Amino acid sequence: MEAVYPHGVTPQAMQAALAAFAGVVGSEWVLASENDRDTYLDAYALGDGHNHAPGAAVAPASVEEVQALVRLANEHRVPLWPVGRGKNLGYGGSAPRLPGTVVLDMSRMNRIIDVDAKFAHALIEPGVGYFDLYNHLRDNNLPLWMSVPGNAWGSVIGNALERGIGYTPYGDHSDMLCGLEVVLPQGDLIRTGMGAMAGNKAWQHYQHGFGPDWAQMFAQSNFGVVTKAGLWLQPEPEMSAKVTVHLPAFEDIAWAIDALAELRRRDVIQHNLVFGNYLHDASVWSQRADWYTGPGAIPDSAAQAIIDNYNIGWWSFTLRLFGYEGTVKAHMRVIRDMIEPRLGKALEFTEWRQGDPAEQSARGIPTVLPLQIVNWHGGRGGHVGFSPVMPPDGALALAQARRMKARFEEAGLDYYTSFTMGRRHISNVNLLIYNRDDADMVARSKALFRTLIADAASAGYAEYRTHPEFMGDIAQTFDFNGHALARLNAQVKRLLDPNGVIAPGKNGIGDAA
Amino acid sequence: MEAVYPHGVTPQAMQAALAAFAGVVGSEWVLASENDRDTYLDAYALGDGHNHAPGAAVAPASVEEVQALVRLANEHRVPLWPVGRGKNLGYGGSAPRLPGTVVLDMSRMNRIIDVDAKFAHALIEPGVGYFDLYNHLRDNNLPLWMSVPGNAWGSVIGNALERGIGYTPYGDHSDMLCGLEVVLPQGDLIRTGMGAMAGNKAWQHYQHGFGPDWAQMFAQSNFGVVTKAGLWLQPEPEMSAKVTVHLPAFEDIAWAIDALAELRRRDVIQHNLVFGNYLHDASVWSQRADWYTGPGAIPDSAAQAIIDNYNIGWWSFTLRLFGYEGTVKAHMRVIRDMIEPRLGKALEFTEWRQGDPAEQSARGIPTVLPLQIVNWHGGRGGHVGFSPVMPPDGALALAQARRMKARFEEAGLDYYTSFTMGRRHISNVNLLIYNRDDADMVARSKALFRTLIADAASAGYAEYRTHPEFMGDIAQTFDFNGHALARLNAQVKRLLDPNGVIAPGKNGIGDAA
Repeated sequence: MEAVYPHGVTPQAMQAALAAFAGVVGSEWVLASENDRDTYLDAYALGDGHNHAPGAAVAPASVEEVQALVRLANEHRVPLWPVGRGKNLGYGGSAPRLPGTVVLDMSRMNRIIDVDAKFAHALIEPGVGYFDLYNHLRDNNLPLWMSVPGNAWGSVIGNALERGIGYTPYGDHSDMLCGLEVVLPQGDLIRTGMGAMAGNKAWQHYQHGFGPDWAQMFAQSNFGVVTKAGLWLQPEPEMSAKVTVHLPAFEDIAWAIDALAELRRRDVIQHNLVFGNYLHDASVWSQRADWYTGPGAIPDSAAQAIIDNYNIGWWSFTLRLFGYEGTVKAHMRVIRDMIEPRLGKALEFTEWRQGDPAEQSARGIPTVLPLQIVNWHGGRGGHVGFSPVMPPDGALALAQARRMKARFEEAGLDYYTSFTMGRRHISNVNLLIYNRDDADMVARSKALFRTLIADAASAGYAEYRTHPEFMGDIAQTFDFNGHALARLNAQVKRLLDPNGVIAPGKNGIGDAA
Repeated sequence: MEAVYPHGVTPQAMQAALAAFAGVVGSEWVLASENDRDTYLDAYALGDGHNHAPGAAVAPASVEEVQALVRLANEHRVPLWPVGRGKNLGYGGSAPRLPGTVVLDMSRMNRIIDVDAKFAHALIEPGVGYFDLYNHLRDNNLPLWMSVPGNAWGSVIGNALERGIGYTPYGDHSDMLCGLEVVLPQGDLIRTGMGAMAGNKAWQHYQHGFGPDWAQMFAQSNFGVVTKAGLWLQPEPEMSAKVTVHLPAFEDIAWAIDALAELRRRDVIQHNLVFGNYLHDASVWSQRADWYTGPGAIPDSAAQAIIDNYNIGWWSFTLRLFGYEGTVKAHMRVIRDMIEPRLGKALEFTEWRQGDPAEQSARGIPTVLPLQIVNWHGGRGGHVGFSPVMPPDGALALAQARRMKARFEEAGLDYYTSFTMGRRHISNVNLLIYNRDDADMVARSKALFRTLIADAASAGYAEYRTHPEFMGDIAQTFDFNGHALARLNAQVKRLLDPNGVIAPGKNGIGDAA
């Protein structure tokens, strides 16, 4: 793609900035050729990605280099878009909100600084990926388990800062952070929590520190560049068990969400779970054309054919248990008592005990297999996630699923959905899957997304995370007291980053009201 | 006590401000007589409390009144010190950091706006006390349990915002908040998390919202006045069990902290526990003169006499289990296996099942009985807490206890201590108990406190919470990168509160560097 420049920056000024950046990181780590720039485009863009095309990328190797780059960005008024490993797929990948922004690629800062086996925590840099940390634990025989997201080629810290999740008791990733080191937009360096005392020995032990706690202010924000984070890990349990449950009918969502929410509130299920529809499996195992080639969204009859063929449910979910054997067995009993009478058959748990193969366990094992879904249509596939947060209520979930299914069908798109259940909420993660080479399908996807935002807002639901293309739209729905929180964020943004050099427009922060 | 005025405010200006405040709340809710002012002094002050004497108090009844008062405070340059119910005992009570600050007493805003029995949460105002909420749940037969701190006459929200704790799985009080409403220092009104969307239905279900999460920025800070908060409650479990364990020897702390931390990391113990020394019980049940009247700290021989007399341990702690019967019994088994061999005897759990008397349960029941400790010396008693945060490590805890005991004895003060165990840390809460009428003892307490701050800092430990008298000292120990976090806090404070009207000096925020 042709070169793109940040608003108000001339090609000459950009050149000067990149030359200055090269003075810090070396010219081999300023990535500005057409090939380089294309690499940082959103692979799943709705359209050609021009709206979110980076101007270049720069990859520092140390905290000091990040500080120097941030200062130069201020001097040259060239904005930076920090990414851990750039794999925020479905939510923009490495692409910035505003075209021309230079990607600050943190993937070279990939040190696992410390893993403490006794206290079960790590201190890592943002370039550390899930596979890196998993391999490190395995290769060093450390009896520690980690949580991984569905697709795990991204950055551990990056995922946490976007409020990504996994499916173990450590799956609320941003809540498992304990201590951040952050370069502020003008180059100062802070540590949050107990790390605000030099040499403090409890930085990775206690999350809050003394005074206001900034840790969650650097999640989904543009207030700084995180350069280190503490992370709590799970001590390897004595036993784990897991079971995948398939529910035959669309309407089963109502009783199932109520039952699962009850088990979650009562701490029997201690992890986030994905309550997903049949397309989760079908889109990994097959392509759409195997089932349907007619016009419009895949019809219910084809859906039923898929369900029958694979012997899966309209919905399915996986439960995981971890702990001492007695606890795991007690929880299995409670789950059986609650689920089996509704299901009409026995649950078959896969049990794991120390020494058994990892695959048999309920631990998080990094994989990228689910990425296969983007081949659903053939062509250059892509997806974008629409994820409003709701109360964990069966009747509301059923109503939401009905409304959403109708909207997808109106738009002629296949209804791919899940209700991710957190501790006290459900997040209705819908994926709009499209063929990027089908301009009409892309246009319908984009239009549908905006319809869904409005639908959700009028139902009283808001998104927890979104693609750069929609950050402004979603931010607008947070309208309490005339967008009071946005005013506050914008004020703080101007204070900390008067030249707007860190991730301008991220989540709508600092957008003109 | 004679009238005190904020720095730079004349008696006439104060008069004018109070008259303006009366125009908002009615003159009966501006409390400025000598009696009124004395009521808001720190009842446990180290000295006469003059350093932290309020100039007056004002008590609003609504969010709109808080906004109006904050705007008038800016106009008149008269600072406000917000308190929930003013019972932050041991950490200053209702007394402000700077003399003359007007206490903003939120106790009239005591509505329990909503309690949701299905989803187990509440929305409350800052004047709601633990007894209020407990009685509300009981009187309405709501099957919900709450966490309460050791002394429970304070505000539920106030305690959470100071990062107070309780002793159930809902005991990390600030982490159980879900959604805040806050009046900012210039009068704007925000809601955090999903509440930033008007009419959002998930405000009390999901903690983080979209973009940076401000919730923890209003804990231990002076960035705003919290006017509402969501709070997660515990669904009444099928069963609970509890056991108090006494350990005979001082050195037992080493193995016990390691064992308990292991149980905590492995989620068998799911609550904060107090690992306290013999004085916890003795100071409630007796007075010092019953045991010792000589000079200096109470000697080991008298300590042993107390221990023998009450048949208690040098240390003791209480464990609580909650859940389905199978889970509770499985966890009892794990605890027995780990503790009984070291203890040399069987643990006797008190079990509770639905329908049994509340006292038998492990639920939080508000009490103020432990306040009795301030009568230890006779005279007008007081105490102040010194609470550094440490890794949950037995050897470090033993070393810390040795060092602290020696310091208390050097100062001629009785060693009252506990190690409060959180999820991944211990907090070494030491109480300096004194007779306020004994000037020498007060002076020794004050000097000891400053010695302890320096000791802790050189060991790499910092406090999580402190009395206004020591806020500046503690803040100074957070020295990473030349007090970088304090610089950031001061910058934001100046932005949000240019006239410094909300809780000036709170936790050292905005102190001159």
